Amino acid sequence: MSTVATATAKEVFDLLHDDLVAIEREFGADAVSSVAAITEISDYLREGGGKRIRPSLLLLAARSLGYSDRGMIRLGAVVEMVHTATLVHDDIIDAADTRRGRPSTNRAWGNGKCVLVGDWLYMQAFRVALEERNFRVLELLIGLTQQMVEGELLQMERLGKPISEGEYHDLIYRKTACLFEVSMRLGAVLAGADRAVEDAMGDYGRNLGLAFQIVDDVLDLTATEEVLGKPVASDLREGKATLAVIHTLENGSTPAERLSIQTVLRDGNFDRVSPSEILHILNRNQSVNYAMQSAFGYSAAAQAALAGVPDSEYKRALQWMPEFVVAREK
Amino acid sequence: MSTVATATAKEVFDLLHDDLVAIEREFGADAVSSVAAITEISDYLREGGGKRIRPSLLLLAARSLGYSDRGMIRLGAVVEMVHTATLVHDDIIDAADTRRGRPSTNRAWGNGKCVLVGDWLYMQAFRVALEERNFRVLELLIGLTQQMVEGELLQMERLGKPISEGEYHDLIYRKTACLFEVSMRLGAVLAGADRAVEDAMGDYGRNLGLAFQIVDDVLDLTATEEVLGKPVASDLREGKATLAVIHTLENGSTPAERLSIQTVLRDGNFDRVSPSEILHILNRNQSVNYAMQSAFGYSAAAQAALAGVPDSEYKRALQWMPEFVVAREK
Repeated sequence: MSTVATATAKEVFDLLHDDLVAIEREFGADAVSSVAAITEISDYLREGGGKRIRPSLLLLAARSLGYSDRGMIRLGAVVEMVHTATLVHDDIIDAADTRRGRPSTNRAWGNGKCVLVGDWLYMQAFRVALEERNFRVLELLIGLTQQMVEGELLQMERLGKPISEGEYHDLIYRKTACLFEVSMRLGAVLAGADRAVEDAMGDYGRNLGLAFQIVDDVLDLTATEEVLGKPVASDLREGKATLAVIHTLENGSTPAERLSIQTVLRDGNFDRVSPSEILHILNRNQSVNYAMQSAFGYSAAAQAALAGVPDSEYKRALQWMPEFVVAREK
Repeated sequence: MSTVATATAKEVFDLLHDDLVAIEREFGADAVSSVAAITEISDYLREGGGKRIRPSLLLLAARSLGYSDRGMIRLGAVVEMVHTATLVHDDIIDAADTRRGRPSTNRAWGNGKCVLVGDWLYMQAFRVALEERNFRVLELLIGLTQQMVEGELLQMERLGKPISEGEYHDLIYRKTACLFEVSMRLGAVLAGADRAVEDAMGDYGRNLGLAFQIVDDVLDLTATEEVLGKPVASDLREGKATLAVIHTLENGSTPAERLSIQTVLRDGNFDRVSPSEILHILNRNQSVNYAMQSAFGYSAAAQAALAGVPDSEYKRALQWMPEFVVAREK
């Protein structure tokens, strides 16, 4: 691991502030269409906030390798557009009512419009990316979107069923870590890095993304509805088994405990078993702890992947990110 | 107009047979994924047939300009994949029950999977297109998909309302003619044509596409359910005003006639006015004839756009296409 000291949240925020404002402006300008529904829905989603973690990664990767040109603003907006497109389509698939505490887009505008606005955002992301005139950039983005889409399909096929830890790993890679990885790789490509450096940056992104999603899945089980902005244990309600649940199913839980979990997974509701009973079972089996340990492992692997990156304030920010991701409470 | 004699259907079929078989094989190979639903749904759609008019245009454009390399097989599959992706998403939007006389994909697999399989097909089309390593190819495809998606959104916003002839023109350009135009342009780009030749080919495709869609819309009103493989006057049932209907609304129909048409458009059914009454009104106002005259005009414009193309059997086939399009009965 690098010996560079880790930055603080405030330092990272200040470091990226101007770039993120520029990306926000770029996204806003890119997502304007002559068709009203497109501008409306993408403004709605953009204003909904979000952590902007993906463009931040791209910025840090590019800047830590000495790049500071306009391409990182453009591609920063691109990764956020791709992310937004997946959210719009996912809401249709999950038939979600809310997203980040507000009505979901499909609830507000209907499935038909949301299919099309998602399509449009994907295409706009590619159109803006095309301006870089770099085939590697396009290859990364197209490969990424296919991985993500395949991941969603795989998840649909496994809803309501217990899955293995390996399947869970594959799903969270496709769902989250792949976009983190590609954001880092794009930063490296912009900086003209060779393939080994690009791969190291990709490694960082993948490990950070895995840690991020595991923590997300743990918080879904352990945080309050108020903090989450959605009902507790939504994943189980949707029939999704996440790491802590898989751990309890596979390791030493009693038949009665396994049955309780399987009941919720299959029912898709808590009519017969309460969320607090489930959490009690998971804690009794050290499964929440197991999931967090796994997240810590990925977080450390992310930091280790930075070994070859020259010291700078941007590298310090990258060092900070994995620690922030595993320590966050929402 | 060129003096080259027009080919016959049989000649065109023979001329393109081997290329179309190769494209079919390419599409089949391209649309295989490790995720079962993707392969299943795209096989289902591929086997459903269709006229393969878009890859045929691309082949004829490329070959008439002296190109005969592998790129036209690849991009032929690409335009068919883009077309298929739009069908999958359109079926969700229209909540269609059938497509080409079989259950629609959304009916058979559900909205969620169809959103994702449509996404995947778009991405796969781009991935295969990327193999050409030609930015103009990507620019055309990305621009195309955005036009098509915006067209669908515009159509949604106008459902149940009378539209102007100008709006109708814009909608059918986006819905159909744009993909015809881009198929022709891609053929020209493969052949290394300069921009003027690419534009002429694009002109041909756009005019052919406008003629094609106008005739499609006329057949929806005049053909039988048996020939159409779907109920007569589906467009009106879906609240879509097409050219003959617009003509009657705008030109000399009586208030009672206009009211009958507006009633069906708004109701989205034929509970209060029958399809044969509507057809009678349209014929009394010469509106079906007007629409067909418009199609003949575009058909002639398509042929005229070929003036500068050197004579060949491929050019003869291109000359034939517009005549076929306006003369077809299904």
